[in-house]
Amino acid sequence: MSEILNYETVALDDENNALLIIDQTKLPNEEIIKSLTTLQEYYDAIYLLEVRGAPAIGVFAGFAFYLEAVRFKSLPYDDFVAELTKSKDYLNASRPTAVNLSWALERMMKLVKDSNNRPVEDIVESLKYEAIRIKAEDTKMCKDIGENALTLVKKGDGLLTHCNAGQLATSKYGTATAVMYLGQERGYNFKVFSDETRPLLQGARLTSYELNKAGVDVTVICDNMASMVMKNGWVNAVFVGCDRVARNGDTANKIGTSGVAILAKHYGIPFYVCCPSSTIDSSLESGDAIPIEERDGDEIKKLWYEKPMAPEGVKTFNPAFDVTDHSLITAIITEKGICYPPYDFKK
Amino acid sequence: MSEILNYETVALDDENNALLIIDQTKLPNEEIIKSLTTLQEYYDAIYLLEVRGAPAIGVFAGFAFYLEAVRFKSLPYDDFVAELTKSKDYLNASRPTAVNLSWALERMMKLVKDSNNRPVEDIVESLKYEAIRIKAEDTKMCKDIGENALTLVKKGDGLLTHCNAGQLATSKYGTATAVMYLGQERGYNFKVFSDETRPLLQGARLTSYELNKAGVDVTVICDNMASMVMKNGWVNAVFVGCDRVARNGDTANKIGTSGVAILAKHYGIPFYVCCPSSTIDSSLESGDAIPIEERDGDEIKKLWYEKPMAPEGVKTFNPAFDVTDHSLITAIITEKGICYPPYDFKK
Repeated sequence: MSEILNYETVALDDENNALLIIDQTKLPNEEIIKSLTTLQEYYDAIYLLEVRGAPAIGVFAGFAFYLEAVRFKSLPYDDFVAELTKSKDYLNASRPTAVNLSWALERMMKLVKDSNNRPVEDIVESLKYEAIRIKAEDTKMCKDIGENALTLVKKGDGLLTHCNAGQLATSKYGTATAVMYLGQERGYNFKVFSDETRPLLQGARLTSYELNKAGVDVTVICDNMASMVMKNGWVNAVFVGCDRVARNGDTANKIGTSGVAILAKHYGIPFYVCCPSSTIDSSLESGDAIPIEERDGDEIKKLWYEKPMAPEGVKTFNPAFDVTDHSLITAIITEKGICYPPYDFKK
Repeated sequence: MSEILNYETVALDDENNALLIIDQTKLPNEEIIKSLTTLQEYYDAIYLLEVRGAPAIGVFAGFAFYLEAVRFKSLPYDDFVAELTKSKDYLNASRPTAVNLSWALERMMKLVKDSNNRPVEDIVESLKYEAIRIKAEDTKMCKDIGENALTLVKKGDGLLTHCNAGQLATSKYGTATAVMYLGQERGYNFKVFSDETRPLLQGARLTSYELNKAGVDVTVICDNMASMVMKNGWVNAVFVGCDRVARNGDTANKIGTSGVAILAKHYGIPFYVCCPSSTIDSSLESGDAIPIEERDGDEIKKLWYEKPMAPEGVKTFNPAFDVTDHSLITAIITEKGICYPPYDFKK
């Protein structure tokens, strides 16, 4: 468990053939390390958002696939493939919208199918290193995003972020938070403002938790306080993650991101989007084509509270994401480099 | 109690010499009408925010002063004045920042002092009508604000408001909500969006409650959803109340108001501030001179929740108000008319 305690989101417990996660639904009040050993437990962990964030789910899926392979390692190759296919399909249904989940599972399965001339025990060993590689690649990618972002700031800067595009959403470093962690390692002394991010409070519950644990100076504000914090001159740059980028640079991210971008433009503060290059979907011409998930309004009226905060008959509107217009984005930072406008992400 | 049940915020129960309020700290889950009869109860109701909103506090103070006068009505004039002065001073300390509180108490006391040649019983009767007059004037003023605002909108418009500048903050109609109530009476069929207004949730708890009760079509959103609602074309105008307006039009109001104004400007939506003309403080050159109350950060991390939503060591910043720059305000609407820029509220 030492890896988890060193702030990793997902870790393989090799001795016990178990998958370790920190249960994100219990943060910040309880730091519960869960040890998962069955397919149903892997499924539930994703479904119940105990592990969340597209990159983290991909890493988790790689290890889960490996552990299922361990379970079937005594079978003949064809039966091994048949059983693993069933496990893969089941796990893939846990959260169909997260692209990294199916991507990681397919990558693991490809290795199995490309190894049909090798002993099953050898294949299982290779799967373990493939899963470790997925995690290492994710960590490297986040670090590279952070290195690129670090060229855009200076020591002592005030940074603002929205939602959690942090280590808890990836294997390590996060995307939007990578600059903060690298800066912390190198004495940049950033002062970070974390929007609490209603209604699920990922900023208060997760971002402030993980940055605080790493010793980063972090201040939680309500979403509606960002304007005042910017007006006070406390923010030199905004860093956010994202869920999908269209060819023209329009960016879907957690609800409220577009508002933060408009405020940043008003106050003349650079607004940076951080993501792996795989998040850029060049098949979409603009953000208009990105579907926006609308969630249950009880998340606004009832979630977290002892009693409802609005009367029963009152309507709600609860979109989980919004699209930030490309004209509001100063640069898009990936592991490959920094993209400035005009954005035109060709296929 | 019929007056309260007809949605009035503060009412005199003449038969029982009592002051009736709806306890706003219990809304929207419990509609508790409190009947108050002692000075300590009047003090506590203001101190504990059971009655809130500067105009409503003024109306409440007028009635409280009258009920204290009833208590002392058998005393000789000089003793009557002495006792009432003690009551007034005590009540005035319940919330020293609300200007309407001291304004209403002084107005009542002036009547007492101007009546030194009349029987005390007569003075008490006059005080009752003075308190009723304060309430009637407040109602008339809110209605006039609403009439002026109504000239700026059309049937079927989408309106957005922030916090509670509603009937619960005044004697009737509210300031920002007056246009909504008058529109409702006249078949305008507005579609109102109410920002929930973190951290105290006045928008979810109070504005949505009172508008819904009046049959107005109201949808609660998280503060960070206003940008998307505006982008969707659902908002034709924003109406907010305010706590203080400087000579140049800079306006202090509930935290988050400045952000809403910036979004409205970005999307080309008119942004209107509604207030009685007494809220304009022409002694202040600009909003820089308006002091901003900073409140306990536990309101962000702990209030309403079963468990804290951010770790113990994490910092918070919790300003109760922000200042909206005059350049973002389309017009300031008072009972006297509609003021357009450039604003220059002379002394």
